[in-house]
Amino acid sequence: MKIKDLGERALIKQITEVLGESASANGFVGIGDDAALTTCNKEAWLVTSKDMLVEGVHFLLPAMTPADLGYKALAVNISDIAAMGGVPRHAYVALALPKETGVEFILEFYRGMGPLAAELGTTISGGDTVSSPGPLMISITVQGEVDRQKALLRSGASPGDILCTTGPLGASAAGLALLLNRELDCPEKLRSQALNAHFRPVPRVREADFLAHSGAVTAAMDISDGLLEDLGEISQASGCGVLLEEDKIPVHPAAQQIAPLAQSLAAEWALNGGEDYELLLAVQSRRFASLSREYESRFGVPLMPIGKVVGEKGLWMVTKEGKRVKLTIKGFQHF
Amino acid sequence: MKIKDLGERALIKQITEVLGESASANGFVGIGDDAALTTCNKEAWLVTSKDMLVEGVHFLLPAMTPADLGYKALAVNISDIAAMGGVPRHAYVALALPKETGVEFILEFYRGMGPLAAELGTTISGGDTVSSPGPLMISITVQGEVDRQKALLRSGASPGDILCTTGPLGASAAGLALLLNRELDCPEKLRSQALNAHFRPVPRVREADFLAHSGAVTAAMDISDGLLEDLGEISQASGCGVLLEEDKIPVHPAAQQIAPLAQSLAAEWALNGGEDYELLLAVQSRRFASLSREYESRFGVPLMPIGKVVGEKGLWMVTKEGKRVKLTIKGFQHF
Repeated sequence: MKIKDLGERALIKQITEVLGESASANGFVGIGDDAALTTCNKEAWLVTSKDMLVEGVHFLLPAMTPADLGYKALAVNISDIAAMGGVPRHAYVALALPKETGVEFILEFYRGMGPLAAELGTTISGGDTVSSPGPLMISITVQGEVDRQKALLRSGASPGDILCTTGPLGASAAGLALLLNRELDCPEKLRSQALNAHFRPVPRVREADFLAHSGAVTAAMDISDGLLEDLGEISQASGCGVLLEEDKIPVHPAAQQIAPLAQSLAAEWALNGGEDYELLLAVQSRRFASLSREYESRFGVPLMPIGKVVGEKGLWMVTKEGKRVKLTIKGFQHF
Repeated sequence: MKIKDLGERALIKQITEVLGESASANGFVGIGDDAALTTCNKEAWLVTSKDMLVEGVHFLLPAMTPADLGYKALAVNISDIAAMGGVPRHAYVALALPKETGVEFILEFYRGMGPLAAELGTTISGGDTVSSPGPLMISITVQGEVDRQKALLRSGASPGDILCTTGPLGASAAGLALLLNRELDCPEKLRSQALNAHFRPVPRVREADFLAHSGAVTAAMDISDGLLEDLGEISQASGCGVLLEEDKIPVHPAAQQIAPLAQSLAAEWALNGGEDYELLLAVQSRRFASLSREYESRFGVPLMPIGKVVGEKGLWMVTKEGKRVKLTIKGFQHF
């Protein structure tokens, strides 16, 4: 059987069975969340994220500069730490490089990574550089810390919780659309806004740290695979359903303006585009208004409610016309 | 400039400069040793190793079974933890898989990994599985712990220290020679011994833990790139030279018997073959005899002295004929 026929979730389940006692023991959160929590000391969990990025699958060269690639490769791994409410401390960078890769490419890659690491207090502490007979591949591991009582999991959402995001969605997908269609006529300012969203996503570390300490967030993850697919993850992990309100989906202005030029739907980008790396949160309903106010006073933008957690399993949406429809997930397929 | 022209060590130096304050700060050991040491709690360092293995560069398919591949990919990363005197706790496994990879391949990969993890008390705590348009790539991160005062570095060797290994060398290279020349006429028992050394190296975790606690070891690493290249690393890090005694190089019996069949030199395999994953140690000379006795009583084999650390920089060897010659390093070239 091929992986794409089995599906990633079923594969992870089978791997976990094969590993038996070696898989993520001791009741800690491991395989299946944004990052793994393991014992570090009495006060904190060690949070570890590990993503692999493959040229031609996750990024395109030379459409992306090496500096943007270095930035983004670190950013998406740090975003996984933020999704657990953690603070990133150390990053380990493994590169498999085609033989013809120049030294300047690698140094530019690290030049793109360095300022983000410095800004977030993260140290590049090690790694590995090997030769690739195929595409460029990047594997980054980030270690962070989170107070034991404050870790944000995917699994804590309950019916009634408000679902929200930390920002508007779809701009990264708009940037990707511009990359895939270089002929597209698009005003320069708009183009650079969308490309920036795609190349330079901002991991919501300080926001996540604040949210984790609020005690009001019941579940969290980062929006990497697309809002709908990621909502599916939270509802699966929490054993609940989700009811979205179509007119509340926060579509990024750049997506709204670029979509018609690309004969695409901005709402589709916001729901299924992915790679926005905003946080997706479930928040206790009685705490939502005050949390959002305090969040806005700190970060200058409000939390953006998109619907709520419901008891009935599945993904539901109240359309702009007031109809309740069942949604199917059409996010990024890894295989 | 291409990486192979610059060299890996110079590349790491340039990367460290580019990263500035983001590179391995705080005086901890990071880029450049077998694994990185970072703060975990008051008593212990967190030890992190990260290796990337690429099909066609580090392993050959289908010459290697998926179970052997899973075993070895974990073993070589755990070996890096052992090289620091650490005990492995958690492993994170990222796989980039060609689209046609079957589910059974992946499960076999994990079936090969599971028993080694279980035996050493290591948990597979997370990872990532993505698609590769090129070769299969494996990136594993292992986290371990080592008492703060006990970590084994490459940098502590002093002139007069005895150099030794925890086992004979060259059997892994003999196995690789058999793989690369399937026509080679070799007795079955010998063949399986050499292939086993190549496919199933034993990370010296318990040995390293004992050695780290002895307080007699001044420098350590695992022999992955070849004895001479790895000796070069220790002498570079410690600012010393190395004097080998040719007649003491512990050539593995399988290498000795297979080398003539392959028109190769067993000594060459022992010196430059690599991938034996025995530990290479520098030990205080006055402690060596008693340490080796206690080591043998615990592990059934003695420490194998190969020479000593000297003040004069460079790699020197006293040949069987009593001549002192200067060696050049010819180990595995990553690019």
